[in-house]
Amino acid sequence: MPTEAHDLRHHGDAEVRGDGAALVDLAVNVRADTPPAWLRERIAGSLGSLAAYPDGRAARAAVAARHGLPVERVLLTAGAAEAFVLLARALKVRRPVVVHPQFTEPEAALRDAGHTVDRVLLREEDGFRLDPAAVPEEADLVVIGNPTNPTSVLHPATSVAELARPGRTLVVDEAFMDAVPGEREALAGRTDVPGLVVLRSLTKTWGLAGLRIGYVLAAPETIADLERAQPLWPVSTPALAAAQACVSPPALAEAAHTAHRIASDRAHLVAGLGEFAAAGLRVVEPAEGPFVLVRLPRAAAVRRHLRELGFAVRRGDTFPGLGEEWLRLAVRDRGTVSSFLGALERAMTAAGR
Amino acid sequence: MPTEAHDLRHHGDAEVRGDGAALVDLAVNVRADTPPAWLRERIAGSLGSLAAYPDGRAARAAVAARHGLPVERVLLTAGAAEAFVLLARALKVRRPVVVHPQFTEPEAALRDAGHTVDRVLLREEDGFRLDPAAVPEEADLVVIGNPTNPTSVLHPATSVAELARPGRTLVVDEAFMDAVPGEREALAGRTDVPGLVVLRSLTKTWGLAGLRIGYVLAAPETIADLERAQPLWPVSTPALAAAQACVSPPALAEAAHTAHRIASDRAHLVAGLGEFAAAGLRVVEPAEGPFVLVRLPRAAAVRRHLRELGFAVRRGDTFPGLGEEWLRLAVRDRGTVSSFLGALERAMTAAGR
Repeated sequence: MPTEAHDLRHHGDAEVRGDGAALVDLAVNVRADTPPAWLRERIAGSLGSLAAYPDGRAARAAVAARHGLPVERVLLTAGAAEAFVLLARALKVRRPVVVHPQFTEPEAALRDAGHTVDRVLLREEDGFRLDPAAVPEEADLVVIGNPTNPTSVLHPATSVAELARPGRTLVVDEAFMDAVPGEREALAGRTDVPGLVVLRSLTKTWGLAGLRIGYVLAAPETIADLERAQPLWPVSTPALAAAQACVSPPALAEAAHTAHRIASDRAHLVAGLGEFAAAGLRVVEPAEGPFVLVRLPRAAAVRRHLRELGFAVRRGDTFPGLGEEWLRLAVRDRGTVSSFLGALERAMTAAGR
Repeated sequence: MPTEAHDLRHHGDAEVRGDGAALVDLAVNVRADTPPAWLRERIAGSLGSLAAYPDGRAARAAVAARHGLPVERVLLTAGAAEAFVLLARALKVRRPVVVHPQFTEPEAALRDAGHTVDRVLLREEDGFRLDPAAVPEEADLVVIGNPTNPTSVLHPATSVAELARPGRTLVVDEAFMDAVPGEREALAGRTDVPGLVVLRSLTKTWGLAGLRIGYVLAAPETIADLERAQPLWPVSTPALAAAQACVSPPALAEAAHTAHRIASDRAHLVAGLGEFAAAGLRVVEPAEGPFVLVRLPRAAAVRRHLRELGFAVRRGDTFPGLGEEWLRLAVRDRGTVSSFLGALERAMTAAGR
């Protein structure tokens, strides 16, 4: 399959925009409602000090404490998207490999920085599970997501750590890990895996996509390299306030609670999707992220009909390793899921005619 | 003078931090109070839509309209600092030249991107005024500030435009131009100057340093090159809301009013500084920005004494072309200026003992 077949710069947010009609959003992997009131208040509280340049020291210390790491192992970034650009630009890399299907931005950033990127394609027949042996030995940068967007597969931490080698940077995108109960299989906070770089986002669980905040955990030398490639004052004051708030113990407790709720809502969605098995719909399981990947006949037509019925879902064909028969569905509350399942039935019927 | 003599990464915000004592800030070139209430409300109003990824289209269109340009000539950035990094990374440049003394971040960003940077040093005896002939003919990137930080010199637009050449990118940092009444000598909005890139900030006049918002005006091809080097979603939703608000006609009228107030406050400051002429203090005149550059004996000691008296001013010795006898003073309201002048008298007396 030619590389050019995938629009690596297509993201779910483009599917929610459009003709002005309000669509129920199952396309974007972000908490659908606004940030919680207490968090909005913390962010609003920072607006009084906007005249000063951002001072990221307190937020950096808070993030470091949350993972039990020294501050030298933490870099705050303007979302994970900035982290991908910094990694692509600042690290001396000759053989980067991206494990697909996954979020396309790391590969896009590497290509934009002039790198030739090799792909390891995990296979549907293996349940999109990682086979560490599939990654070429000579790769000096490996990028993998865990849990993986869009497959929702959670790789065992031991399998991911097996990818580490002396002389290799191992980038694990854990943007959705806080949606996994207990954050089991997380590598964040580990200092015993050589070359490990963990990316975290505060965007998804907290509904902060608009604020641009995330962070990198890595060895101090790597953090220093990335920091040198950042613009001055890379993270805004409101985003710093949010970061500090989101790693506080009460926030972590709330995130843990949310992770369990997502698991329950996802079970409802997956059970409902099971009703469509006879119509040829299959869910990639076990799904462990706040979204599920499905394969179904006439997916493009189904997606179009769903739009007409007021529901936006994410096309799968822009992800390397997937084709146009794939769709990604964000997990929403039970009421929304139930309405969606009703719409899906009508859309599949209409597409099958 | 060796290049390494100047800490290009020193900025005024570092001078306001420190031992916890609250200092009156004449070190940072940003409106000292918070953003106006109406603007804070507009920004706070955007916090309800933080769950969505930022959509910069409306703000970009508003900025384009403000300068009478098509949107293809506008790029929103996370502050001017991001713009400098993009310019350094995305443009194919072999002989970059920076006109000093000026804001050091453009040169720092060029060096970080691997460029060898030549300097043109404007001279005190010429009043730090631009001599276009001093810029080497072979320079294919020229960076100049207007009005210039830290000298407060406003170069004639015609002199700046004279620096344009076929095959040369001319970057004019107009971060402080909206503090000049009538924005006379602005090149923003001009499409007849080949290779022109104008940078604008919304940080200074509006007290938004913490929010990270600015923009670039250039030919569509240049904008496209810079945009490709940006991370996804580079500007946060609150910053986009602020940008849109700050280029509205009422905001422009308020900025124009502020520019006149700054001119009046600056006159008060410069007149007061004139009292210290006998003590060897000289002001670079005419000062046209929201700050003034002064040369005085024992400046380092004076700065230390001012800190003890509760006033932070900006050291000048980190700017190429200046030495330790220079200080930069932000223009503040008349009351603050009067208190400052009193403190300056005590500090100069103490330093002279």
